[in-house]
Amino acid sequence: MADLLADEGRRFIVASHQNPDGDAIGSMLGMGRALTAAGRDTVLWHPDPDPVPAELAFLLAPGERIRADPPADAAERTLLALDCASAARLGDRPPGELARLVVNVDHHHDNTRFGDVNLVDGAASSTAELVLRLLRAAGLPLTREVAEPLYVALVTDTGRFGYANATPEAHRAAAELIEAGVEPAPVSRRLYEERPLDSVLLLGRALAGARSLLDGRLVLGVLAEADFAAAGTDDTEGIPEALRGVRGAEVAALAREVPEGWRVSLRAAGDAVDVSAIVRETGGGGHRAAAGGTFPGSLEELLPWLERAVAAQLDG
Amino acid sequence: MADLLADEGRRFIVASHQNPDGDAIGSMLGMGRALTAAGRDTVLWHPDPDPVPAELAFLLAPGERIRADPPADAAERTLLALDCASAARLGDRPPGELARLVVNVDHHHDNTRFGDVNLVDGAASSTAELVLRLLRAAGLPLTREVAEPLYVALVTDTGRFGYANATPEAHRAAAELIEAGVEPAPVSRRLYEERPLDSVLLLGRALAGARSLLDGRLVLGVLAEADFAAAGTDDTEGIPEALRGVRGAEVAALAREVPEGWRVSLRAAGDAVDVSAIVRETGGGGHRAAAGGTFPGSLEELLPWLERAVAAQLDG
Repeated sequence: MADLLADEGRRFIVASHQNPDGDAIGSMLGMGRALTAAGRDTVLWHPDPDPVPAELAFLLAPGERIRADPPADAAERTLLALDCASAARLGDRPPGELARLVVNVDHHHDNTRFGDVNLVDGAASSTAELVLRLLRAAGLPLTREVAEPLYVALVTDTGRFGYANATPEAHRAAAELIEAGVEPAPVSRRLYEERPLDSVLLLGRALAGARSLLDGRLVLGVLAEADFAAAGTDDTEGIPEALRGVRGAEVAALAREVPEGWRVSLRAAGDAVDVSAIVRETGGGGHRAAAGGTFPGSLEELLPWLERAVAAQLDG
Repeated sequence: MADLLADEGRRFIVASHQNPDGDAIGSMLGMGRALTAAGRDTVLWHPDPDPVPAELAFLLAPGERIRADPPADAAERTLLALDCASAARLGDRPPGELARLVVNVDHHHDNTRFGDVNLVDGAASSTAELVLRLLRAAGLPLTREVAEPLYVALVTDTGRFGYANATPEAHRAAAELIEAGVEPAPVSRRLYEERPLDSVLLLGRALAGARSLLDGRLVLGVLAEADFAAAGTDDTEGIPEALRGVRGAEVAALAREVPEGWRVSLRAAGDAVDVSAIVRETGGGGHRAAAGGTFPGSLEELLPWLERAVAAQLDG
């Protein structure tokens, strides 16, 4: 597969999934910059109207662009699909109809191998680790500009090297990226010490009112309309995870007042509980560790329902 | 120096500094366990009445003990002083009077080289990295029980691999410790997701009332006696650092009501400001990045004083 990248005449689309995270954006920018620096005609594409989340916008260089639509000459290009477990993650149109060749580079265990060529390794910490492996094999230079987004991808996907995917290989990749010029301290400050004041005020309100239920196994934060008004924002990013940090919490819940009732976001600590099952009866969804749904009643009705539903999962 | 550890007849005291942090405790336990497993007569000593901070207590195995006083036969032992920049960090009595041989293993730039033998490397991320290097050189086995405290030392001293000392070598050491059996996810949860509910409630109160001063360059949290009473704790650990996470903050301050007035803890974001200079006029102390002092007046008097003192440092 590295031969494809080393092929000097080849033109590329570097793409990643909708609703992108650090690994999606970081892998795209790292791969795209390495190919462009090596003289390959390369465009970045992302099937999302608002492609770069605000907390990752610092990664984009001035003038660097991620297209919301594929280029007109897509049919003549090789599409590198990064961090996409299935073709559907790239939008409604099958990537095989779009590009000349589809190369699928991903670390999700359940990847559907939708590419003409597939580099799928479920043991890799992140797609960025696979991109680094490919760049090395293709002999493309690892400059600081290439290394920095890959490092951000690695840090965010491994939860600051705190999740189970913080493997020896993930650490060795980090070592290589730092040797290429990445400075961990400013990157870490950009990622984790740049929360706007209004969001901090809202986080504070959620934590200051946190409730311990089910003997501490469930920790609940509640944000009513008055809290959003007082803080001046409705940005709840990271609040469920902060609630999960309470000692003894097996499930953390954030209930937000919405016009239809209460929007509940759930997070599991550890692998023992499947929180997506808790919200299923409300029509919600998600996966084992993180899920959400909307409860149509009042807060007084929500609390006993939530306690019962979480208890059923904890005991089941 | 590795020869000393490999010497089968030698008896050891493994020691570290007062007011110990993760690197002190982790390095001691790692070194002590490796020597004990290799059959060396080894005791752990720590010149502190309360030697292991609560958040690190999980590292101690059942029955594992860190002495508060040196053993009676200290004069016949080799003292391994870990993570001590000077002999004074081990207490009032000079270590050379205590033990037969003093071996100084440390990563602080300003280490005074007080040992009979000195392994001082200011470029090392942590003392744990040096301990790992020594164990390897001495051929002592790196079991999971030895690797886990060294890993905790590395994680805490590099700020989850987010500080400038998260070097390539630090990551390669982490890789080696994980290969020895450390599981990053449960360790990370123990370190960072085990905050007692009352401390979370107090953190919430500080964040919910955070004030932006000096055009956002100073972020201040205020905790009055009523806040401590409502939360049910006076544990402010980590609160100044959380305030520093506000976007734009160059200095974070936490003011706590105490009988004498207001105790102010300061943290700098980045290296541009020396916060110890801010509290010097109140008789406080600390270092560039973290300092504290007690202000004898009311909150109404504290605010203009703090704004003026911080502004002087920011502009100076």
